[in-house]
Order: sequence, then structure tokens, then C-alpha cells
Amino acid sequence: MANTHPFVQHVGYLHTGAAGATTPDLVRYTDVNTDPTFIRSGGINDPVAVFDGSVIPYGINGTPTLLYTSVSYLPIQWTIPYTKGSETQSLAVTYDGGKNFTKLNEGPVIPGPPFPVTNVTGFRDPYVFQSPQLDHVANSTTGIWYTVISGGIHGQGPSQFLFRQYDADYRDWEYLGQWWHEAANSSWGDGTWAGRWGFNFEVGNVFTLNDEGYSNSSDAEFFTTLGAEWSEVPIIPQVSQFREMLWASGNVSNSPNGSVHFEPTMAGKLDWGVFAYAAAGKLLPATSQASVHSGTTVDRFIIYLWLTNDNFGTSAFPTVQQGWSSTLTTVRELSRGTISNVMNDYLVAGPASWRIASQDKSAGTVELVTLNQTIAREVRAAFVSNATRTITEPGRTISASASGYGNASSNDLNFAQSPSSKFFMLTTTIHFPAVARNATDLKAGLKILSSEYESTSIYYQFANESLIIDRSNSSAAAATTPGILSNNEAGRLRLFNIASGSANGSSSIESLALTVVVDNSVVEVYANDRFVLSTWVWSWYDESTEISFLHEGSVAVRFDDVVVYEGLVDAWPARP
Amino acid sequence: MANTHPFVQHVGYLHTGAAGATTPDLVRYTDVNTDPTFIRSGGINDPVAVFDGSVIPYGINGTPTLLYTSVSYLPIQWTIPYTKGSETQSLAVTYDGGKNFTKLNEGPVIPGPPFPVTNVTGFRDPYVFQSPQLDHVANSTTGIWYTVISGGIHGQGPSQFLFRQYDADYRDWEYLGQWWHEAANSSWGDGTWAGRWGFNFEVGNVFTLNDEGYSNSSDAEFFTTLGAEWSEVPIIPQVSQFREMLWASGNVSNSPNGSVHFEPTMAGKLDWGVFAYAAAGKLLPATSQASVHSGTTVDRFIIYLWLTNDNFGTSAFPTVQQGWSSTLTTVRELSRGTISNVMNDYLVAGPASWRIASQDKSAGTVELVTLNQTIAREVRAAFVSNATRTITEPGRTISASASGYGNASSNDLNFAQSPSSKFFMLTTTIHFPAVARNATDLKAGLKILSSEYESTSIYYQFANESLIIDRSNSSAAAATTPGILSNNEAGRLRLFNIASGSANGSSSIESLALTVVVDNSVVEVYANDRFVLSTWVWSWYDESTEISFLHEGSVAVRFDDVVVYEGLVDAWPARP
Repeated sequence: MANTHPFVQHVGYLHTGAAGATTPDLVRYTDVNTDPTFIRSGGINDPVAVFDGSVIPYGINGTPTLLYTSVSYLPIQWTIPYTKGSETQSLAVTYDGGKNFTKLNEGPVIPGPPFPVTNVTGFRDPYVFQSPQLDHVANSTTGIWYTVISGGIHGQGPSQFLFRQYDADYRDWEYLGQWWHEAANSSWGDGTWAGRWGFNFEVGNVFTLNDEGYSNSSDAEFFTTLGAEWSEVPIIPQVSQFREMLWASGNVSNSPNGSVHFEPTMAGKLDWGVFAYAAAGKLLPATSQASVHSGTTVDRFIIYLWLTNDNFGTSAFPTVQQGWSSTLTTVRELSRGTISNVMNDYLVAGPASWRIASQDKSAGTVELVTLNQTIAREVRAAFVSNATRTITEPGRTISASASGYGNASSNDLNFAQSPSSKFFMLTTTIHFPAVARNATDLKAGLKILSSEYESTSIYYQFANESLIIDRSNSSAAAATTPGILSNNEAGRLRLFNIASGSANGSSSIESLALTVVVDNSVVEVYANDRFVLSTWVWSWYDESTEISFLHEGSVAVRFDDVVVYEGLVDAWPARP
Repeated sequence: MANTHPFVQHVGYLHTGAAGATTPDLVRYTDVNTDPTFIRSGGINDPVAVFDGSVIPYGINGTPTLLYTSVSYLPIQWTIPYTKGSETQSLAVTYDGGKNFTKLNEGPVIPGPPFPVTNVTGFRDPYVFQSPQLDHVANSTTGIWYTVISGGIHGQGPSQFLFRQYDADYRDWEYLGQWWHEAANSSWGDGTWAGRWGFNFEVGNVFTLNDEGYSNSSDAEFFTTLGAEWSEVPIIPQVSQFREMLWASGNVSNSPNGSVHFEPTMAGKLDWGVFAYAAAGKLLPATSQASVHSGTTVDRFIIYLWLTNDNFGTSAFPTVQQGWSSTLTTVRELSRGTISNVMNDYLVAGPASWRIASQDKSAGTVELVTLNQTIAREVRAAFVSNATRTITEPGRTISASASGYGNASSNDLNFAQSPSSKFFMLTTTIHFPAVARNATDLKAGLKILSSEYESTSIYYQFANESLIIDRSNSSAAAATTPGILSNNEAGRLRLFNIASGSANGSSSIESLALTVVVDNSVVEVYANDRFVLSTWVWSWYDESTEISFLHEGSVAVRFDDVVVYEGLVDAWPARP
């Protein structure tokens, strides 16, 4: 069975150990151990659990060195008072290339949030990084390591705590303050584009990107990815109702009191799927095995997201039927993206998940920048080159008058050929006429995993600028199997007005470039290099593999460049 | 068998738990448990050991609250690199009046020495105290609790680290800096009066005394008792060659950088015995059961010292023969003592274990202050009132011509009556003529635990201003039993010239007021309320109970007020 997703028991990851895998090319993965845990709780520093961590590749004595959250007391959650000392940060090193990490025979190198900020909502997931830009701002020794630790403060709000390496053995870390703090339960703007900052941050990564990928040159900007935890009122102790997987970009400066400060300029959702969380990113240098293998000549920042399927332990997912309980999403590359020739109209106003980088007053346009996310080039290339079948569906324009399926305002057009399995990557570009923006009844997209018993709809609608995965009819088993969710998953995507370049002031709506990866019960929707929505779709019948166009409403749209690459890649060739 | 000493397995105390006892009157003690441990290692914070601590009487929710050193990694010693996180400070509370302390279900309240001072030589033995004077100097909330933690910094020297309570639950402690630091291996003056500060401090207590005892009124002065660890060169890893049990008094002020600073004005030995260590002091209020019982109307500061008998684990003491391995010394009261009408001559120059409090230029005299140490009044009273026999030996003047024992220059005069046991308190006052100060051959004192086979000599000699316990003939078993030490124990005591009050400029040597407590194999020598020397003397034969005067040299001295109170008190009536 082909499968691109490295499955991890992430609940186990959090509570009894951390699992790992290696890959020579980002495409195929090998578990580090049969287990496949590389560190387990039960030591002096972590008697009850180990949480997330990150690796300094050439750390103590040049050895890969893991800085991780060692846990001494549970429960820990932002909804309950914090047990002092429950989360500390400790070191472990590997002598076998990461198969096993040996804990250092010493106490935590960061024994807690510094006095007096000890009443935290969380203090975990240390992310280590280097940054010449930060060296400059913080007046640090060049090449020193930093770590952000995610958490927050009761009654105040979520924070990233910044520390700086102090000695060659990484034994002491100098606290540089909460380089980023947001007010409790606040949001970026009205929350449309980046949800809520919530009450507690988790799994924060910090890195710098330019248009090519990872960069620490002067044109690069600071980005962070983060999880945000929040709840509607009343907050119920030990129930963290919502988690959002976000990103932000911003400026880093010295604040008046001398501490380093991160100030967002744009923020968004790293994935709109409610079960997509805990993005783990890392610098993948151009000199890495994978990059050399693929001929990539730039440094990249790649991320994996965790896709839980039991709503972080709260819902009754049929784990037994599934055989495993979580997955990682397809690996992505991040870069700073540009949207050029955007009409400078009401659509570009922020705060949003983009910012205006420059303005051409004479043309009446702006250039926007945002976070770009694309499937890692090797993986995308492998999906194409390794496809067992490549289906090219002719492009077509679908209008209300073309209706032949369902009611008069609905188009439901089967592909000439559909894949025979539930493993494929589908690409298409949808073009909208200018009138589409006000067509409140318009829905345009695809119906996948379809048969006479069930189907999943993926469509864009201007009414609320949303890309939606409608799972109401996704699984014939949903009615009888608890935990198979049938509610919509949705994300917000703005299609801008792009100057047409002909008459001044004329424009057209930005096209919607979709890539849909279907990996059995995991569906990932990528749009315009800046939107991702990943979720679970549990189609039940083997024959539910048909694909069709989806169109509703009175405005015609055109589908172009429709290709299905069937087969994907077996990401775990060594697994039985 | 009568015995005043609460025996504790102090090695066990340090490594597997802490033992305790209660007393209604300072005289009789009851173990808190059959065990008699009240806290044991093995928890999340203290997996390998518990070290010393102290109790806030009305702590968390009004409950007695122990702040103690929780140990996660061993070995720990100033001679070796410090394992970060090996010593942390944690809380435990008691619900049964101290029989058992229950550890809080939270991490250490002080997780380590604050960054960047983490390369410590030690960080343990938190001593909690309140101090209106310190509240004033440190601009604290009135009545707040402080703690000093003893230790030092590699390459810099020993320190007391000062912290201040931050919240009602004692969960956080604010670091106020190293309120006291001394250069590595330095000494107070030339070291004559207070040994060496060494490399690492231990068991620091902090309190304020006036002439009556404990006081926090404005006339009181800061005192600290402390252990100092050092070694001759070369320093051998894991060998702490010397420990000194010291005291210091000084001024407390805000240093220019705003931190609180302790500056000694005088310092001395709390006990000159090399095996006397780890003094544990506490405020005994006038309202306490013991004070009410004895009619004491002043607050007192009382201390117990630990008397190891195997040189801190390094010598082969015959523990099996003895049946136990350490003891506590007789409880003492501390106060600020005054020596009045002291001639302002070369003898008063410091730095020393006294300081000049005032000067009378017309009389040519000064008033000195120092630390006074006396046997707790209840205990001394019990030794007197409970004596099974009281022997009054007539006073006498002994000169070289009185020789009848030994050689011509030696007097060795048996008491008319000696005790029939090895449990007694002996008092006497020895008067010296002015010529004694330059009589280099003069020795005057007592011979105790004496028989034809063995005896122990206790004498003062002006030659080096020392009070000496000569153990060279103390034990007939020494030659055949490893670990029975026969070397001298000695301490330095200056007898000042006291203005005689008659002709201006005339003076006499201060008399030597001795109290010797013999508790089988423990001998404690108290002199002039400001000198204590405690040690082990292992006399072997039951009949070695004779006492005689000791005099050598050409100058006559007079012994007065010679009384022996035989019997002492059974300090542990409940023990088998």
C-alpha cells in the first residue's frame, strides 16, 4: 500500500517518548528504531513524560544534541493552575545518528521560566535556531544558538520565551525575555485570517525566509510557526477546546528596555484543518543529502504537521478499525511569497495574512508578501514521476446552463477517467470572471472519493471567501461508527483583483490553483501556494474513487490544467 | 544510662532522610518517629538524597513548612565540577506536628542558583528567617521570610545566597544576590581567630542578637553561623580536607548596586573541635513551651552542633563498638557578649573574634563585644539540680613548689573526691598573675577520665593562647583500635588585660572560667562564655573517672569555685 505519511503515535510521543524517522530524500522514510522511539521518559529530569524538542546538529562535542521538555508533574494545561517545575528543558545527545538519545547526567539546563514569571500556562517545546540577524539585534556572539520556549502567563496571555546559549556545553541559557507576547484571548485583527492567539502558545518555531526559502541574508524576514490554545467561555478546567496552527512574520528589534522584541506584521493559518497541529520545522541546507539528491541549490525550511484524528484525545475515533491514530502531513517547503500587481482596493487592507510590501501609485497596484507553502519539490516530483497512471482531464468552462446533474443551478460533471485507488495528487486551476466576486450562490471545485454511496466535496465560494471540504456525505460508515466526523472543514482564502496590464484600472480575479493530495483517508488541499487545509476523510467503499467537477450557481467558471497523478509514493518501504 | 545527647545518624540524615526529635524543655527529647526519620529521599525532586533544611513554623496554610535541599545528582563537592541541578530547594509540610513531612506535589521552589551564577561549589541548606532589620534594608514587606542558601562559586569563593519570599504559598523566591561572598581560600585576618573562609560555605544560619539573646530590636546585630570547607594544596577531587564551624557578625546594608550586603566586623569559631559541625540554630521565643517552663522571659537563639566521629566519613571509627556514629552537642544559647574594662593594649587589635564597641580614653580601656555561647539555662540548671552527687573541691593555689607529682616543674593534684561515672559537669575558675602572660612553660587545667591506665588533659597555655585537650593518653584502646584518635584538639582563647579599677593603668589578666561537660566519650569545654571546644575522648576503663588539677611551669595559678555535678540528665528517657 502506497502511503506518503510517516505515522507516529503522537500521544505516545507526548507522554512516554518521542519517535523519529530518517529520510535521504524527503520522500522515503525509515524508522530510527523498531520501536520507533528515540527518547523515553522515566529519567531523573523527566520521570513522567517527555515533550517536544529540537536538535542542535553539532552540539556538545560536535554531537547532535537534543534540547527537549522534561516533565516531572502532570497534568499540565493552560486551563488549570501551573504546577511549578512541571516542565523543564533538558539535554540529550546521540552517538548513533539519532537512533537513540542519551540523557545528560545533569539537571535541566533551563529549570523553569525565570522569576518572577513563574505562573505560566505552559513552558515547553524548545526550538533551537541560529540567526545572524538576531545576533545583530541582541548583540550576541556570532553563531550563538537561541531557543524559543512556548507558553504563556496566567492572566496575561501567550508568549514565546527567548533564551540564548551561554556556554560551549549548552549548560546555561541566558533569558532574553518574552520576545513575543500577546494579550490573553486576543486575535490578529478581527481574527479572520489568523484565528485567535488564545491563552497559550505551543510548538513555536522561529526562522528567517526570503523568496527562495530559508535565508539568513539581510533580505530575509523573521517567521514563526506556532500552536495557539484557546476556548470559548466558560473555560472548563483541563479542556483545551481549540488549537490553531498559525504562522506569523514580523520585525525584530530591541525594545526600549533593551530586550529583544518580535512584532508581527502579518499572520495566518499554517493549516486550516482543525486537526492539523504541532508543525515541526527544520532548516534543510542546500548541502543536505536530500537537497543534493534533488539538485536543490537553496537552503530550505521544511515542515511536517501532525494530523490528529481524535481531536487531541477528546473524540472517540475508531483507532482499532484504522490501525493507527495519527499521521504527519506531506512535507512542505516554506518561503516568503509575493503576489504582484494586486489592485490597491479594499481587498488588500489588513491586518491579514499578507502585508503590502510596495505600492505603484501610478498603476494603482500593490505588491503583497505572505507566507508561501508548497509541497516539498522532491515529493511533488516523485508524485509526478512515480505515478502509476497520469490522467489528463480536458479543461472546460462550466456554466449554470451546463447543468445536467441535480437541480438547475448545479453542475456535477464526472471526469472522463477517475483513478482506481484512493492515492493520488490532483491539480487544476480555476478561473473566475469578475462577476464571480459578488455571486453569492457560486461554488466551484471538485467532488472526490465518490461513488453512488458517498462523496467528498471540495469547493471555493466567494460568499465567505472560503475553501471548504464538505464531509457530510464522505463516509457511508459515519452514521454507524462513532468518531467519524461529517462536519465541514473550511479555510479562508482571498482571491485578489490582479491588474490586467492592459487598460489602467482594469483587473481580473486571481485564479485558484488547487493541488489536492488524497492519501486514503487523508486529504490535503493546497491553494495558490499560500493556503493549506488538511483533514481526515473516511470514505468507506473501495469503489469510492470517482472524481467530478463541482459547480453551483449562475456564474460560469473555467477549469484548466486538470491532471491526476495516481499512486503517490510508498513513504515507508521498510515497514511491513 | 544518663546521656544528654540526642544521637542522630547524620550520615543517614544527609543521604537518605532527616531525623528529628521534640523536647518540651531542651533537656529531655523524644524521637519524632521510631525510625526516627521525618523526611526521606526518593521523590520526584529528591530521587537520590535530601540535605539540610529549616522550618517556617506557620507556613503554607499556617502549617509548619520545611524548605530543604532536594538532591537529584551525586556526587556533590566543592572539589569537583558542579552537576547543574544536583541541588534544588523544595517544600514539605507536616500535618502531625513534625513527625512526618509530606512533600509538595510540585517542583523545587528554588530550582537552582540564578543565572549566570550556576557554576557553584554548592547550593544547599536553606535557612529560613524573618528580620525586621532586613525588611528595612531590603525595602521588603514587613514580616516576609528570607532564606540564605549556602555554597560558593568555582574560582571565586564561598557565598551565602539570599532570597526573599515572593508569594503566600512560598512557591517563588526572589533572588537578592550573594549577600555575603568571600574570596576563595581567604581568611578573616590572618586566620588566627576564625580559620579559613575556604572554598564553600555550608549550613549557614542568619539571626540577630542583642545582649539578652535573640532580638529584632534596633540594638540587635546580625550574626551568622556557617560551615567552611577547604583543603590544603594540592586539592584532591572529592576530598574536602577541612571543615570549620564558624560564626560571623557584621553590618547589613544596601550596596551601591542596590543589592543587600553583609560585611563582617568580627568572626570566630563556633566550636574549635574539628569534628564539631553543621550547627542548626533556631529562634526559641519567650512564649515557647520550654521558655515558659523555665521562666525565661527573653527570646533566645539556640543551637545544636553535630559531632561526627569518623571525620566526616573519612576515618575508620569503631562504629560497631560504639553502637552509633554521631551525636549532637549540648544545646547552647547565643547572645552578644560584652567584655568590659579591657585595657586598650596590643591584645585588642583585630580582625578578631571580637570588636571594639566603645573606648574610654581617660581610663585607657575599651569595651569589646563578641559572640557569647553558654549551655542552655534549662540544661545547665538540670545538670545542677538533677545531679546524683555534687562534689565541691576546695580552691587552691598551685605553684611550681607544690610539686609532688611527676617532675619538679609539674603539679598533678588529685581531687579529694572524683565522680564514680563518666557523666558530669565540672566548673572552675582559674586566676593567673600578670607574669603568667609571658610564662612560656605554663600549663594550667584539669586531668579527667583518669586512672593509672589513661587520662585526658585539658589545659590553657599562654604560649600560644590555647585551650588544649590532650588525648595522647586518653584511651588505653587507642593503640589497638583503629580510628580512636589520640591527637590534640585545641582552640584559641585570648585572656585580656582587665583594668583593675584601682590605680589608673593597672590591670590583671582576665580569669579563665571553665565548664567541662563529660558525657561518656563526648567532652565539651566551655570557657568565659565565648569559647567552646567539643570532641571525642574514648576512655576505655570503667575506673577512669578520676579528676585532678593540672599545672606545669614556674608561675603559680589559683583554682576557685571547683564543683562537679555528677549524673547529667537522661536526654532520651523513651529510648531503650
